[in-house]
Amino acid sequence: MGLHRVLEPAGVLPQAAVRLDADPVIGPDEVRIAVERLNLDAASYRQLRTAHGGDGEAVRAEVLRIVGERGKMHNPVTGSGGMLVGTVAEVGPESPLGLKPGDRVATLVSLTLTPLAITDGLARWDGMSEQVPAEGHAILFARSIAAVLPDDLPVPLALAVMDVCGAPALTHRVVAGRPVPPRVAVLGAAGKSGSLALAAARRAGAAETVGLVPSQEEERRLVASGLADRVVRADARDPVAVAEALGAPADVTVVCVDVPGCEHGAVLGTAAGGTVVFFSMATSFPAAALGAEGLAADVTMLIGNGFVPGHAEMALDLLRSEPGVRALFEGRL
Amino acid sequence: MGLHRVLEPAGVLPQAAVRLDADPVIGPDEVRIAVERLNLDAASYRQLRTAHGGDGEAVRAEVLRIVGERGKMHNPVTGSGGMLVGTVAEVGPESPLGLKPGDRVATLVSLTLTPLAITDGLARWDGMSEQVPAEGHAILFARSIAAVLPDDLPVPLALAVMDVCGAPALTHRVVAGRPVPPRVAVLGAAGKSGSLALAAARRAGAAETVGLVPSQEEERRLVASGLADRVVRADARDPVAVAEALGAPADVTVVCVDVPGCEHGAVLGTAAGGTVVFFSMATSFPAAALGAEGLAADVTMLIGNGFVPGHAEMALDLLRSEPGVRALFEGRL
Repeated sequence: MGLHRVLEPAGVLPQAAVRLDADPVIGPDEVRIAVERLNLDAASYRQLRTAHGGDGEAVRAEVLRIVGERGKMHNPVTGSGGMLVGTVAEVGPESPLGLKPGDRVATLVSLTLTPLAITDGLARWDGMSEQVPAEGHAILFARSIAAVLPDDLPVPLALAVMDVCGAPALTHRVVAGRPVPPRVAVLGAAGKSGSLALAAARRAGAAETVGLVPSQEEERRLVASGLADRVVRADARDPVAVAEALGAPADVTVVCVDVPGCEHGAVLGTAAGGTVVFFSMATSFPAAALGAEGLAADVTMLIGNGFVPGHAEMALDLLRSEPGVRALFEGRL
Repeated sequence: MGLHRVLEPAGVLPQAAVRLDADPVIGPDEVRIAVERLNLDAASYRQLRTAHGGDGEAVRAEVLRIVGERGKMHNPVTGSGGMLVGTVAEVGPESPLGLKPGDRVATLVSLTLTPLAITDGLARWDGMSEQVPAEGHAILFARSIAAVLPDDLPVPLALAVMDVCGAPALTHRVVAGRPVPPRVAVLGAAGKSGSLALAAARRAGAAETVGLVPSQEEERRLVASGLADRVVRADARDPVAVAEALGAPADVTVVCVDVPGCEHGAVLGTAAGGTVVFFSMATSFPAAALGAEGLAADVTMLIGNGFVPGHAEMALDLLRSEPGVRALFEGRL
């Protein structure tokens, strides 16, 4: 679990640590990756860009500062990270991950718990995109997850899909687990996790899929993708607008909007007995818990766990088999 | 829902508002309560007390400042509130809550969304307890929840039980919904929500109940209560210590510890396919989501919704029928 890499505070797991030891010398059950590219979490990148008024140079400096200070890319404001792509450089003799030197892999655990050092000053990144070409090294622990990159997809595309692969997998599980085919609403439906969640919901047997988007442009793109039975437009931070846009409440609502303040719209848009799955790292725990209570809303609220067995395979399969998903992803890259 | 009471920002629900209008003049579907007593949320009270070094005067001043500025008792650090007891002063002609003037009620929606004004400067409170004798008024909306206080229980006791009544109700639902009787672990098991969750788990048919507590004193009290099949001791913020103390992982883990940093111990202490229910308002959404992912832990994580139909009745019934629950509650008051 990487406890020996935690510099402070003592006793916590790497994800909770303030600072990690990114020493390139690996332990017997560790793996060192030569980093090629980081993919910052959407909520994290948006926060960084907004905080620096869209100044790419300042965003780059801030990312370098965070990694330098913390030994990992763990945004202190959003609490989120992202993931990375690289090549396996060295494998400890006791590593259970099944990797070998030269494998090109994506890490499927968060950057918030991955020891990381950057050696090129991010010279090839202009700070204007969440995908960050980078040189340096990262460490995987025994209990990590990494996937060998598929041969048939460009790296930025595979990375973007794998970054959000927990969303379609958990959405599929929740939808398939309902006693009758549910009406599914996805907030932030034209984004990466949103479009995959829509495709997964349909595949899992949803009775209807509704995609909610904030702008005319996203509405146009989502309609063109064909991923949603119905596309509606509203500001996901406006609870009444969300509920009105959805019409009849959803049985399963999936929140994929990477800005704060979408908890109450999701709750208000969900039927009694329904389930809300929160995937956005901008979700506030108290806002969700107290919002549902305040609305006397008997809804089940799930914290979107980024790990579901088989998640990367399912997401890549959706990308390959659903032209609408691929079009939305390629449009964003 | 009280949208008309939101002063800023526009369009959000009262829970998300920075500031509410606590005007005592009620609308046609509102109810005005003459306040007797507030019960601050445990995470909120602990944060206030810690921030002010245990100085009760300073805590009192801070609560007055928050209520004065926000028109509600919404701790800006923890995002949590609590609830209140009072007497119905006026009922709007269109209120659907079924209350009448003179009813003594507890509000079962959070103080974070309840318009509140305090008129006695909290003169009868020394700032040293989460129960706050207070004079003033509060407003209930059409879509609120309030319960008439039972005749057979002292007010502070009923208030303390109702404050956490979502925990036993949701625990019961989760435990009863498992395909085979689960092993249930409760972190923070000697507290209010923890002891009720233990009792609810047993009543719902748990195969075994394990209570985890931080100190020898709480261990002694929980053992004496008889509520847990097994009592273990560990710091819930230390994931490895939690997992070791629990022994075999739990199928259902309920987190009732009112301090930050308990997410990873809960995940690590839960079996694959198990469920973690987070009731503490000190829970961090990203820490839970990314921690589970980082541990490749296939666990379902629930945000503890404070509303489950019948929750107050179930909690009061557990208090009345389980001497161990009552003893622990009375010991804290």
